[in-house]
Amino acid sequence: MFLIQEKVNQAIEILKEQSTDMWLTFVRETSGVRDPALDFLIGAGDLTWQSALILTRKGERIAIVGNLEKESISRLDVFNEILGYDTAVSGLLKETITRLDPARIAVNTPRNNVHADGLTYSMYAFLREYLSVTPYADRLVSAEPVISALRGRKTPAEQERVRKAVQITDEIFRKTFAQIKVGMTEIEVGEMMHSLAREHGVELAWVPESCPAVNSGPNSPVGHSGPTAIKLKRGHVLHFDFGVKYEGYCSDIQRVCYILREGETQAPAEVQRGFDVIRTAVEKSRRAMKPGVTGNSIDIISRGIVTDAGYPEFPYALGHQLGRVAHDGGALLGPL
Amino acid sequence: MFLIQEKVNQAIEILKEQSTDMWLTFVRETSGVRDPALDFLIGAGDLTWQSALILTRKGERIAIVGNLEKESISRLDVFNEILGYDTAVSGLLKETITRLDPARIAVNTPRNNVHADGLTYSMYAFLREYLSVTPYADRLVSAEPVISALRGRKTPAEQERVRKAVQITDEIFRKTFAQIKVGMTEIEVGEMMHSLAREHGVELAWVPESCPAVNSGPNSPVGHSGPTAIKLKRGHVLHFDFGVKYEGYCSDIQRVCYILREGETQAPAEVQRGFDVIRTAVEKSRRAMKPGVTGNSIDIISRGIVTDAGYPEFPYALGHQLGRVAHDGGALLGPL
Repeated sequence: MFLIQEKVNQAIEILKEQSTDMWLTFVRETSGVRDPALDFLIGAGDLTWQSALILTRKGERIAIVGNLEKESISRLDVFNEILGYDTAVSGLLKETITRLDPARIAVNTPRNNVHADGLTYSMYAFLREYLSVTPYADRLVSAEPVISALRGRKTPAEQERVRKAVQITDEIFRKTFAQIKVGMTEIEVGEMMHSLAREHGVELAWVPESCPAVNSGPNSPVGHSGPTAIKLKRGHVLHFDFGVKYEGYCSDIQRVCYILREGETQAPAEVQRGFDVIRTAVEKSRRAMKPGVTGNSIDIISRGIVTDAGYPEFPYALGHQLGRVAHDGGALLGPL
Repeated sequence: MFLIQEKVNQAIEILKEQSTDMWLTFVRETSGVRDPALDFLIGAGDLTWQSALILTRKGERIAIVGNLEKESISRLDVFNEILGYDTAVSGLLKETITRLDPARIAVNTPRNNVHADGLTYSMYAFLREYLSVTPYADRLVSAEPVISALRGRKTPAEQERVRKAVQITDEIFRKTFAQIKVGMTEIEVGEMMHSLAREHGVELAWVPESCPAVNSGPNSPVGHSGPTAIKLKRGHVLHFDFGVKYEGYCSDIQRVCYILREGETQAPAEVQRGFDVIRTAVEKSRRAMKPGVTGNSIDIISRGIVTDAGYPEFPYALGHQLGRVAHDGGALLGPL
């Protein structure tokens, strides 16, 4: 509950900063399709009928919901005006927006930030229809900058949860490295990590089929597919991609190791070199990260180190923010 | 896996029946906002990049996905053509649609069926942009009739799961009635039902805060809010709304009982009369249900019985279909 209040306060500060009069989240039966912005506005609950959650730069926090849901919304202690209806939201919504008279109404229609993408085409059409006889239908703008800032800037409560998720993931990796053995299948390694996550009382950061990804050796299909029946063998490079979700907040960590052949005391030169180049790239990028620097300029550092070393350019971004999903927040360490 | 294949086959039959050439589900980063149609097309997994899932009345099943996800989609054994891309979906999507040359492309933009409401405004805008130089941008129609039929008509595998969910719910109600005692709070009753659900290895059909709803006596706020600290007392009417989810399929059952006062052997006349009227209404409506009859005509039966008995008209629908969510399927037993 505390976290929602923290985020709603933050959202109002962002509206002020961006000179946006109103942010409107407009949803229905959210047990079906669920606008991700609801996590910050009402938490884990659902809304059944057409509902409007309105924040303004002046600090108004208004919820227009079906009468049956007024009580559960008021318990959140977030909204200072809760308007209920029995038959149709349209009248109340039109009246409320007219009363507030916003010059711009930000709605959840982003171009790039996938986690701001909450307004369906149908709900957008309803909204325009309800406002059609007012000047407000033509004042809709994208809330992408609002939501990107809201998801990107972690409040203290959020930072604490991400940090804890990362800590637990690190521990699970250490236990995994201590327990894996030559001859185990990727699937068995994946199951071991699932049960370590259960022991730690956390959910997985993405779908269990590919969390973790476990790839042992050159024949394992790399990508977002899950572990296979391929067995861990000496001489394999073993790659992991794994994250957990702690109280709604995710980690997302890749790890790679090499399984020594009989008689080897270190990885072969070409494996070690690949590892060193990547590690150098990551470390140099990490040291360059500071407030005010663009994500692109951080990505370029790693990209240059990798290609200068003669490796092909990696066809992904270098990194991303964490949050309520593994890939969250507006910023990306990636190519333009 | 079997269930998805069953549903995809059914979808193709529905396209034939409705003379719709193509059904296109167009999504991105579905760990954020998730088109509910994906449950029937790819199951519980997620898609990261912009992805198009295409079914045609001729029986084509085509997935256009990021290359990293080709492997996991092919494992589903549902799509007979899986096209992967590294940088942008637009070219492949335009080529594929041009090759199939549909007269109508159904997309997920329903007016009424909330569980067909999967296409976001932003993704709709991308789709029109990608198809802008073709005749196909103007051939988009709503897939609401396709999805409503698909969600409404339960395949044998789905019927089996719903039946099992209902059975388990009934059992949990029987155990609850056996264990509740005067003096317990609504919250304690709710927690008891949560632990019975866990014992049965099922999830709840909607959010735990209000599943079950437990309302004891006249001062308990009825609606979609959860149990309160109000204690069960003799003379209370006790009302429940509860459902479970068994392998992705839900039940949703209301129950009401009366707690006898000391010395009473039956409920007071006004309580018994209310109960009898509702029971008669439900039973008469139930008996009138058969293929070909409209949902509205079934609702009218109950509505008439209730108002004829002098009670106010209930401001809800009489009933709804079940499915992957508690309120699922296109049909409603409700007012026009």
